[in-house]
Amino acid sequence: MNPGNTSRPLPVAPPANRRGIALDEYRLAGGFWGGLQAVNSAATLRHCLEWMERLGWTANFDRAAAGDTGGPRPGWQFSDSEVYKLVEALAWEHGRTGDAWANETLEVLVDRIAAAQADDGYLNTCYGGPGQEPRYADLSSGHELYCTGHLLQAAVARARTTGEDKLVEVARRAADHVCREFGPEGRQGICGHPEIEVGLAEFGRALGEPRYTEQARRFIDRRGRGTLEPVALLDGSYFQDDVPVVEADAWRGHAVRALYLAAGAVDVAVDTGDRELLGALERQWARTVERRTYLTGGMGSRHQDEGFGEDWELPPDRAYCETCAGIASNMVSWRLYLATGRVEYADLIERTLYNVVAASPGEDGRSFFYANPLQQRASAADVKPDQVNPRAEGGVRAPWFDVSCCPTNLARTLASWQACAASVEGDTLALLQYAPGEIRAELDGGALALRVTTAYPLEGTVHIEVVEAPGSEVELRLRVPDWAEGAALTDGGGRRAVGPGWAAVRAVFEPGAALTLELPVGPRFTWPDERIDAVRGCVAVERGPLVLCAEDLDLPGDLPIERLRVDTRAAPRAEGDGAVVRMAARTEPEAPAGRVPFRAGPQRSGWDAPPREVRLVPYHRRARRGGSAMRVFLPGAERS
Amino acid sequence: MNPGNTSRPLPVAPPANRRGIALDEYRLAGGFWGGLQAVNSAATLRHCLEWMERLGWTANFDRAAAGDTGGPRPGWQFSDSEVYKLVEALAWEHGRTGDAWANETLEVLVDRIAAAQADDGYLNTCYGGPGQEPRYADLSSGHELYCTGHLLQAAVARARTTGEDKLVEVARRAADHVCREFGPEGRQGICGHPEIEVGLAEFGRALGEPRYTEQARRFIDRRGRGTLEPVALLDGSYFQDDVPVVEADAWRGHAVRALYLAAGAVDVAVDTGDRELLGALERQWARTVERRTYLTGGMGSRHQDEGFGEDWELPPDRAYCETCAGIASNMVSWRLYLATGRVEYADLIERTLYNVVAASPGEDGRSFFYANPLQQRASAADVKPDQVNPRAEGGVRAPWFDVSCCPTNLARTLASWQACAASVEGDTLALLQYAPGEIRAELDGGALALRVTTAYPLEGTVHIEVVEAPGSEVELRLRVPDWAEGAALTDGGGRRAVGPGWAAVRAVFEPGAALTLELPVGPRFTWPDERIDAVRGCVAVERGPLVLCAEDLDLPGDLPIERLRVDTRAAPRAEGDGAVVRMAARTEPEAPAGRVPFRAGPQRSGWDAPPREVRLVPYHRRARRGGSAMRVFLPGAERS
Repeated sequence: MNPGNTSRPLPVAPPANRRGIALDEYRLAGGFWGGLQAVNSAATLRHCLEWMERLGWTANFDRAAAGDTGGPRPGWQFSDSEVYKLVEALAWEHGRTGDAWANETLEVLVDRIAAAQADDGYLNTCYGGPGQEPRYADLSSGHELYCTGHLLQAAVARARTTGEDKLVEVARRAADHVCREFGPEGRQGICGHPEIEVGLAEFGRALGEPRYTEQARRFIDRRGRGTLEPVALLDGSYFQDDVPVVEADAWRGHAVRALYLAAGAVDVAVDTGDRELLGALERQWARTVERRTYLTGGMGSRHQDEGFGEDWELPPDRAYCETCAGIASNMVSWRLYLATGRVEYADLIERTLYNVVAASPGEDGRSFFYANPLQQRASAADVKPDQVNPRAEGGVRAPWFDVSCCPTNLARTLASWQACAASVEGDTLALLQYAPGEIRAELDGGALALRVTTAYPLEGTVHIEVVEAPGSEVELRLRVPDWAEGAALTDGGGRRAVGPGWAAVRAVFEPGAALTLELPVGPRFTWPDERIDAVRGCVAVERGPLVLCAEDLDLPGDLPIERLRVDTRAAPRAEGDGAVVRMAARTEPEAPAGRVPFRAGPQRSGWDAPPREVRLVPYHRRARRGGSAMRVFLPGAERS
Repeated sequence: MNPGNTSRPLPVAPPANRRGIALDEYRLAGGFWGGLQAVNSAATLRHCLEWMERLGWTANFDRAAAGDTGGPRPGWQFSDSEVYKLVEALAWEHGRTGDAWANETLEVLVDRIAAAQADDGYLNTCYGGPGQEPRYADLSSGHELYCTGHLLQAAVARARTTGEDKLVEVARRAADHVCREFGPEGRQGICGHPEIEVGLAEFGRALGEPRYTEQARRFIDRRGRGTLEPVALLDGSYFQDDVPVVEADAWRGHAVRALYLAAGAVDVAVDTGDRELLGALERQWARTVERRTYLTGGMGSRHQDEGFGEDWELPPDRAYCETCAGIASNMVSWRLYLATGRVEYADLIERTLYNVVAASPGEDGRSFFYANPLQQRASAADVKPDQVNPRAEGGVRAPWFDVSCCPTNLARTLASWQACAASVEGDTLALLQYAPGEIRAELDGGALALRVTTAYPLEGTVHIEVVEAPGSEVELRLRVPDWAEGAALTDGGGRRAVGPGWAAVRAVFEPGAALTLELPVGPRFTWPDERIDAVRGCVAVERGPLVLCAEDLDLPGDLPIERLRVDTRAAPRAEGDGAVVRMAARTEPEAPAGRVPFRAGPQRSGWDAPPREVRLVPYHRRARRGGSAMRVFLPGAERS
């Protein structure tokens, strides 16, 4: 079987034996992700459509179709991509649920998009029309190929869920245009914002069209040779045009660009059997995770270029950790997992899902964080409801942004969540993420159907009941997260300890057979590597896969958040969906007035008053009760 | 006497009894500042001229004069201001030394500038000409009034040193144009980049023309009311258009803008007798210094907007601390000192002079730092010699920048250094900065002339010999820096301890009388306020007014800079121009591969091997030996 040719709802399917689970193979029954998916279905999809209609981003296609492009055009030069990401989300949504509104909305949008396509397949509402800049005049900042990449990903979602339709045809014509325009005989250029690479590679897979993969390969190979005109005040590393992909040590520059590029490069490496390129990407992942990644899984330490910083540059307050970078990181990790089967990729996906992806949307599914810092100094509410906002840096979620990449990216990610929750490889089903529901996957030998019952991540018990099984031996592989020291697995053979990694059971399962995985999700202290200067002497509290945080709403008035000290001798204990720790304040004498805040005496340890119990909440629901000052890392008191 | 009407070489002269010392009243005889001033004279002035000729920034005036403005124009929209800052530097240089080259170069530049001025006084090479955008079409980003402000400051330098000439006439016509165009009946706008305010106020003082001060007042009063169109992704605080000047708590947004605005506002407050406005600016200074200022005196914690961050947001690695912000900070502190006579303003000036202003230029006077961070993680040399560079963030000084505000700003600051080194008030001479040379100032009662002999800041002894004195009682007031606990003063009455603040001697001085101030300039540890998260658990070493730093060039191979620990029980001792401290490395076990850099065990204190002696160098000469990894703040080892 070549799962690359299936039309199952499956975002990425390399031509290998390991494949992700299809959307219709895992039906969620509520729980953490089922809840988020329901809000996405009911609110976020419509919210994104409403905002793009209101701002005129969808109408840009109508104007391009009518040749009426001479006047001012609403939106940034990359606003088409937001419409495409919504179309992708609608395709997954319809594929997963059969939702008629999603299908109809998609078809209406695709009609408008198709009408704007030029005869030669070029499709962009910002360039090439009457009164507009010419096509591809500004590869550094024009984002035309970036937009096309998102169109192709949307078409992949459609091809996988509904089959070839008008959207797929539009995308095919656009991809053919790119292959002609940027092929061996065409422009030897690349796009400042990678995305066309992953789009072409996925589309090539979905349609079984190697020309698209070859063109993706060309874009990968051309990159890193300094051909892009620099953007003001930034160097080529901003868009990864400084070092060829295969030669780089770590990801750098603009995080979303770096990660989209890496995702496309993994696809190309796998599809062309390039072990050297794949190895380079594995090393880049490891180096980046080990030195340039936050406790939340967030990536991007700098606001200036929305970029990675240097090794160990992980400031909590100015962490950028863009929601889209979390999504893009998971795209890369997922591809590397499929390519290698190594569990650490799934570990990082879980960390990022709970603490970046889930942290962005508000409960209503109509407000979002763009940046996800680990410290908020002040609770200033800088967000104007019902208006376009900059980036919501003030600690309150915003309904829409000036550059609004995150809401539609979340919509497509949540609509296809289960696609990365498990994988199938021959006679083996690997469960990567735990959520209540039913899984039914085709293995070699027949279908294996499981019922998963769990209150994870708040509780650590995952019950798995076999509903249907082949008559032959199959393997059920359960991921034990890297933090889960002390886990245990109970099956027909009794209860046994399992370490982080895989807990595997190989058997001829009978319907009704049950397994129970127990993960130690109690709260725990976590310390940073000593080379991370920005959080020296601090400790964080995690609970299972959840990073927790202190919000000033939960602090007594005499416990100002900037003076917190946590007593690390007293273990944190679970309470509600968070934890309770012992904290106190410490107050140094103020420096003399009119002087810089440095003085001739050491910082003391300890505290001013006996510590008391204070509640921490999961990071992903910070600012749910309004703007708050917030800290993930709490200074520890080494001496009392 | 109203020193506002003097034509002495005196940058700022409020209509109060306290005035700065004029350039020709303090002749430096080498020393730290005499050396920098000599390099500025010999190299930096010519360097700036050469680069602006090479890049076509000066020729923009010729093209504007010829009406040949249709084609591409070199430089940013604010490049005229660099030419004006060089003209200002040349004016001070000629005024201070009589240098003929400086005078001739100035006159040639002024002829070219004057030729570009429109009949109605408007003068800008980027707007209003054939094929250009119209005048004042973009107040947020156009920088036209900003450029005019620098023209006015240049004219002030000329008026104070040479008297009214062609430059002053050009400036007068430009100022009159601004008053008409933006007066009560004109455009009710402000410039996105403050500078016109301080330019108009200074020029009004220099020429005794209250209309200019009134127009400056209008710009101050209009600000903070949200009239500027926001710049993409930034809010009104970026250019201080969020809160009226008199209502603000602290400086915020773009640091140079905030500080130029504050400088102009102090001038306006003093010249219009507005105690409320002056009080607000004093409070803003105090709040900003106490919570938003680095150990070096540097201001600006963020790269994204070149701006202040929030209180206690003082990351050493991503400190921006733009050279121009240091210069602008001193402009504000100097004005507040003149207005109030309070010593802490002069303390901050010294800190900023030695550790920001002096840190920018290389020994050759032809390379500069734009940003002055307190930590450099890697020694990557990203600077291309003989090319325009972005901002020299890689730890090596660059000859010129894309936005090249700092070199010309340094040139004008160094050319007029002594103007802020002392002040005169009635019968009192206050010495604020210590440098070898001769001072001769006119006091009430007659001239007081002093010979200062000192190797400050490396040695703490300042000998002052009276060369000439009035027959009446006068006061000599010596600044004892805020860090100088244990200082002593010896005069005819013997030796006595003096505390930080003022050490004053009031007497009828005889020629030949001598005083000796002893300042404790030995190296010392300095700890940050505990609320500065980014340097928790760290210590810095200062030596007199100098902040020191560790460069990896001075570290043994087994002492990697990211793992340094300093033994704070052993006092640092002076060596060369730096200090020696005891340091060792500490190595935690590495976290498992493929995981984020956080783990389930506390950071240890202490070190792996016995500490040894390691040399620190003055921060201002970092990277003089080539690119280096560098730290000002060193983690302390609390336990051995």
